[in-house]
Amino acid sequence: MSSEKIGIWLIGAWGGVATTAAAGLVAIQKKLQNETGLVSARPEFSDLDLADWSQFVIGGHEIRKTSYEAETNQLLKTSELFGEKLISEIVPELKKFDKNIRTGTLLNVGETIESLASSEAVKTKKESTQNTIERLKSDMQEFQKEHNLSQVIVINVSSTEPPLENVPECDCWNDMEKLLNDQKESPLPASSLYAIASMKAGFPFLNFTPSVGSNLPALNNLAEQNNVLHMGRDGKTGETLMKSILAPMFADRNLNVMSWVGHNIFGNMDGKVLDDPINKANKVHSKDHLLTEILGYKPQTLVSIEYIESMGDWKTAWDHIHFQGFMGTKMSLQFTWQGCDSILAAPLVLDLVRFTEREARRGTTGVMTFLSSFFKSPMGTEEPEFHSQYALLRAWAEDVRNA
Amino acid sequence: MSSEKIGIWLIGAWGGVATTAAAGLVAIQKKLQNETGLVSARPEFSDLDLADWSQFVIGGHEIRKTSYEAETNQLLKTSELFGEKLISEIVPELKKFDKNIRTGTLLNVGETIESLASSEAVKTKKESTQNTIERLKSDMQEFQKEHNLSQVIVINVSSTEPPLENVPECDCWNDMEKLLNDQKESPLPASSLYAIASMKAGFPFLNFTPSVGSNLPALNNLAEQNNVLHMGRDGKTGETLMKSILAPMFADRNLNVMSWVGHNIFGNMDGKVLDDPINKANKVHSKDHLLTEILGYKPQTLVSIEYIESMGDWKTAWDHIHFQGFMGTKMSLQFTWQGCDSILAAPLVLDLVRFTEREARRGTTGVMTFLSSFFKSPMGTEEPEFHSQYALLRAWAEDVRNA
Amino acid sequence: MSSEKIGIWLIGAWGGVATTAAAGLVAIQKKLQNETGLVSARPEFSDLDLADWSQFVIGGHEIRKTSYEAETNQLLKTSELFGEKLISEIVPELKKFDKNIRTGTLLNVGETIESLASSEAVKTKKESTQNTIERLKSDMQEFQKEHNLSQVIVINVSSTEPPLENVPECDCWNDMEKLLNDQKESPLPASSLYAIASMKAGFPFLNFTPSVGSNLPALNNLAEQNNVLHMGRDGKTGETLMKSILAPMFADRNLNVMSWVGHNIFGNMDGKVLDDPINKANKVHSKDHLLTEILGYKPQTLVSIEYIESMGDWKTAWDHIHFQGFMGTKMSLQFTWQGCDSILAAPLVLDLVRFTEREARRGTTGVMTFLSSFFKSPMGTEEPEFHSQYALLRAWAEDVRNA
Amino acid sequence: MSSEKIGIWLIGAWGGVATTAAAGLVAIQKKLQNETGLVSARPEFSDLDLADWSQFVIGGHEIRKTSYEAETNQLLKTSELFGEKLISEIVPELKKFDKNIRTGTLLNVGETIESLASSEAVKTKKESTQNTIERLKSDMQEFQKEHNLSQVIVINVSSTEPPLENVPECDCWNDMEKLLNDQKESPLPASSLYAIASMKAGFPFLNFTPSVGSNLPALNNLAEQNNVLHMGRDGKTGETLMKSILAPMFADRNLNVMSWVGHNIFGNMDGKVLDDPINKANKVHSKDHLLTEILGYKPQTLVSIEYIESMGDWKTAWDHIHFQGFMGTKMSLQFTWQGCDSILAAPLVLDLVRFTEREARRGTTGVMTFLSSFFKSPMGTEEPEFHSQYALLRAWAEDVRNA
Repeated sequence: MSSEKIGIWLIGAWGGVATTAAAGLVAIQKKLQNETGLVSARPEFSDLDLADWSQFVIGGHEIRKTSYEAETNQLLKTSELFGEKLISEIVPELKKFDKNIRTGTLLNVGETIESLASSEAVKTKKESTQNTIERLKSDMQEFQKEHNLSQVIVINVSSTEPPLENVPECDCWNDMEKLLNDQKESPLPASSLYAIASMKAGFPFLNFTPSVGSNLPALNNLAEQNNVLHMGRDGKTGETLMKSILAPMFADRNLNVMSWVGHNIFGNMDGKVLDDPINKANKVHSKDHLLTEILGYKPQTLVSIEYIESMGDWKTAWDHIHFQGFMGTKMSLQFTWQGCDSILAAPLVLDLVRFTEREARRGTTGVMTFLSSFFKSPMGTEEPEFHSQYALLRAWAEDVRNA
Repeated sequence: MSSEKIGIWLIGAWGGVATTAAAGLVAIQKKLQNETGLVSARPEFSDLDLADWSQFVIGGHEIRKTSYEAETNQLLKTSELFGEKLISEIVPELKKFDKNIRTGTLLNVGETIESLASSEAVKTKKESTQNTIERLKSDMQEFQKEHNLSQVIVINVSSTEPPLENVPECDCWNDMEKLLNDQKESPLPASSLYAIASMKAGFPFLNFTPSVGSNLPALNNLAEQNNVLHMGRDGKTGETLMKSILAPMFADRNLNVMSWVGHNIFGNMDGKVLDDPINKANKVHSKDHLLTEILGYKPQTLVSIEYIESMGDWKTAWDHIHFQGFMGTKMSLQFTWQGCDSILAAPLVLDLVRFTEREARRGTTGVMTFLSSFFKSPMGTEEPEFHSQYALLRAWAEDVRNA
Repeated sequence: MSSEKIGIWLIGAWGGVATTAAAGLVAIQKKLQNETGLVSARPEFSDLDLADWSQFVIGGHEIRKTSYEAETNQLLKTSELFGEKLISEIVPELKKFDKNIRTGTLLNVGETIESLASSEAVKTKKESTQNTIERLKSDMQEFQKEHNLSQVIVINVSSTEPPLENVPECDCWNDMEKLLNDQKESPLPASSLYAIASMKAGFPFLNFTPSVGSNLPALNNLAEQNNVLHMGRDGKTGETLMKSILAPMFADRNLNVMSWVGHNIFGNMDGKVLDDPINKANKVHSKDHLLTEILGYKPQTLVSIEYIESMGDWKTAWDHIHFQGFMGTKMSLQFTWQGCDSILAAPLVLDLVRFTEREARRGTTGVMTFLSSFFKSPMGTEEPEFHSQYALLRAWAEDVRNA
Repeated sequence: MSSEKIGIWLIGAWGGVATTAAAGLVAIQKKLQNETGLVSARPEFSDLDLADWSQFVIGGHEIRKTSYEAETNQLLKTSELFGEKLISEIVPELKKFDKNIRTGTLLNVGETIESLASSEAVKTKKESTQNTIERLKSDMQEFQKEHNLSQVIVINVSSTEPPLENVPECDCWNDMEKLLNDQKESPLPASSLYAIASMKAGFPFLNFTPSVGSNLPALNNLAEQNNVLHMGRDGKTGETLMKSILAPMFADRNLNVMSWVGHNIFGNMDGKVLDDPINKANKVHSKDHLLTEILGYKPQTLVSIEYIESMGDWKTAWDHIHFQGFMGTKMSLQFTWQGCDSILAAPLVLDLVRFTEREARRGTTGVMTFLSSFFKSPMGTEEPEFHSQYALLRAWAEDVRNA
């Protein structure tokens, strides 16, 4: 691997996940932290010529006005992350990243997200759809130019959008583009506009959120036209990771799962946004469908996500699985997952960027199914089991190794 | 599959697991229960020409004096299993099985198990090793003859023996047999004597307990000489199953497991026997080693198994997994497994018998590694992950299907 | 105590709680069960000349058409209660109780409860309010006459009603009665009509549900006019009992409870009724208010009650209490309560009847605050702590003892 | 209250509890933290003329060689306590306290504690018992003199000693003193020597550990002779606090507790010392006896305390309570307590000192039973229920108020 610089363009650049990814990246670059939690740092991927952490530079879009210093201190205060000493050591680098953050768009993000926006971001609501896409694209391209980057990977880590009705169904990018030009109001959510901007700039697009992003036939068509990679949706970090691990056990042992109840409580901004039932609908679906896929039948399920302020960025999930075994005997498994959302998500963001950058160097195009194990609702695959998804990553590594 | 009868010879024939297996078998034969919990009943194994449940007949060795009626009622009383109505419907068949139970051996079973023995069983302590083996073998052979059985599968489901010191190390059965003839006291534990008897009779041997059983080079040699199948050790039913499912998740996500604490409480006879620290040692090791194998390093571990009378056959396991993620952040996963030991174990016993009977029809010999997913310490394989072990079973099914 | 017979008149007579109370009463009368779970059976109350269990006879109102035999078998099937043998032994007595069950009223019970009603009960919707009260009263009085009862205690154990808007505010029974006569539609919920009927018949009234019942100034006025005792509301059996026990600990140790989240899952008819958000509103409030009263400030709270069919009558409550201690350190307590609702509630119903019958013999009138510890929202007291509420019961016992 | 200075003399002065008490005291004195977790700060005690936090000065005995700066940083590192910023703000004051720490004694502390001792402390093993007492007493008196203190409260917060056999049974201090002079080896544990030194100096003595301390008739006799107050044993901070809160609920509801299993895991120095089974015996007994006292019968109990290094000062206790309710139905309550030991203990230490100082001003002598609620095994009382113990504190406050 050469020492060329590589850009990471974060949508939602000052959010919790992005802030933690930025802080962690700098901490690793400065040898203040090790690589625990980074999948791409596992020994089995050490010979793939992945980019070195020192090569990465961060920029992005954001609709609030703040800074990495403020956000890391906020995470320290609400969630006891990082520690004061570490923050003081990484702030100089983070300030450089702050300069690469540009104003995002509020088109179709929903009222709850709008309520968090800076006055500058509010102005973007009047922009036409095409102008928005052009502006977003320019921001990404200027970032590349300014820092002389060999590649820019765009990744959406912003808050979950509400589901959008009447998203036009068209398979061709040309048809979709026509609609975007013709209609006065954007028929697409913000996450898709970022995806389009990214693809038009020729940059791979990743969607770590349950929002639509590039998950539309027309956008896949655009990706293929422009020879770019893309993948999503919804990073698989906690309770759903557990589901995709545990459900196969019940299936393999022919145990009948009667009900699976999951309650999630947490107190970060994502939680506040999800407290809006419209935004939550997207999320709950993303957490729920895989049980039916793995088990082959639909147990009674319940997923609740509740904003409890005192929890900060820490999520506690309590799951109660009620199952029937031999001779109709009812038994149960309960688990309590106590994890920090940003800390679980941030390394996966860095891993996705790193694997995608490597894949881009191989010159492939389209949906990266080999990254399925990172997503709750992976695009391009029907495989719901974590173990089988992870096997795809291993097989890809073998391919890269042997290429 | 023809309608020939097949024998199941249970070592520990009136114990909780055996009683539940017998009760469940009859309940299924009489269409009073469905096949939930039986792995071999999964659709993916439906075309393998496995034996029909109606073909099986039960017999076995036991060192206590009781009956299936008494034992099912005991499980009803202590653990709310079966229900009075079901018991009354299956007792007539169970009484026929009772007639097939013969006295086992107390050689090297340890004081705790001895204390449970009937006066008749106590007499067996004076028997020579060779006579014991001969008697056990005759019992099995008479069972076959009396019921006109096409095959007999022997499976050890008795209480855990204490570890035996000075087990002779010899690779050849001939050397071992010489030792057995020469030494006044048996150098082998009871579980191995049953294995030898089984192999000499030409019957496959399965070891569902942590006891030694056939897990000695000399016994494997005997198995190959006599063209019989065998496999063990220690049925993987609850907490350890969970470990072999969850540990790979931490490994695959590069999360650093700092400590894994598991506390098990239950109140059945197995619990009483394990309250003897000598017997427990065997068990705890069997539950603990796989973490190191899966993770690639040794976290601090603690496994406790405690006899709490009020629990009856219900086991509650509480596990606390303390792990470190990105930027050194400490997080935790706790789970509480509330399962009924006999109910979890019994269907696996029937599955093992059914799969083994099928394999015997193919005419193979030696250790059945394709059954690894059923065991805590599977013989003949280094693979500790449940998913990969289960893949061996699927591959075997594919082989059988294509044969 | 003489051997006179005493009546228990259950509103919701074939519901889960009533069925379990009836089954338990008969089982104790026939010496098939002991008095575990019965507060009135504690040694400290043994010298109060409480009625003997053999004296009680059961009758009641119900809007469904079923029988105790059917309902006990249903509880056996869904929730593994009682056992087949016990049921067969108590059914003959329960059949006698069945004969004492009369049709209740559907006035203002809400659509969800209506949907469960028998065709006979549906007819009662056309009855005028005054006729309804008269009919209910006659049913109770005939029960007394037919069985030659020294006393009848009426206790509401029916499903929770939806909150009723526009309940008339009047302090005097006379004003309320005028309204009942004048208005075409009943301004009161069914639970209050039962209370009125009970009081008019001169029988003490207890309300084990969150419904309004006698908790209106005008009904208290009626109670005093007719010299009857009454008390309510909402039996304190599980999660709320835990709250009233644990919250004082946090207060006494000056620990700052930041949030208290409680999730309840269960699958009985009560659960189905509470799945109707209108009925649930009454319940959730009843479970929530006491934290503020005990702590002196309002932590963020969340109470969810969800119908999970597989649970049957078993309720699992998971509570997560997040609190701050010295130097702002955040800590947590979680508990999982796994109890059977009917089994927890039924003995309290019998206790309340027994204590009330004893108090009635003393000749007092009005709200029985000494029974506060049995209720989530006890009438006539501001004391939210269980321990202090229980002290009222002990003080009453001392009074009775010394009278 | 005047502005006189008051001394706190900590036995185990650089241990986790002492360090946290010192750090918290300074943080409160400097208005960097509020009074959460301090019982004496509750509004109900605000009018008792308790000492102001600004009046307190810390000194003590210790057998290790370290400093508050090192120890606070250690707690930050292992257990994420305090934060770097707070530590930097309180270190100047803590350095002053460091100067007041003197070398303690190793007489009869057991091998595990000895292994932690500084070379200077090791020399104390050769000192005679009487010289030890004299030296300890002088240290306390010099502390008073040097800082011009109106009072010194001595409180033992050192690690648990092993139980000592052959402690002489004598009721009179004179007899005990004679023994101490005569015997070559001290017949008393170190904790009692500190108590004697404290009493001889005329200072109240508190024992926050399960060690013997002043809990001997002869030492109570000495306390009365010297007109000093004393109290112990074993601060009630976590799992046992929960037991003394929850067990009364089961008793009051006549629920039959069949078994109560408690597993504690933690990783501080206390944990290491308790990993020595000899030291642990003292502790387990202190946690276990109260169940029998509260319930009136002995359920099967199990208490395990295990050292898990990764936990640092954080203790996780999992308790499983198996109980029987109405009609013999088995139910369960489980709780998980996740608290930081030092953070829970330190404010109680400060409270005890503050209440004791106030009581000393009233001029009373002997065992302070009104402080029972702070201890697992409170001296001078048979009352095991927390609520009733707390009522003693309230009654005392009323006395003080009305004096």
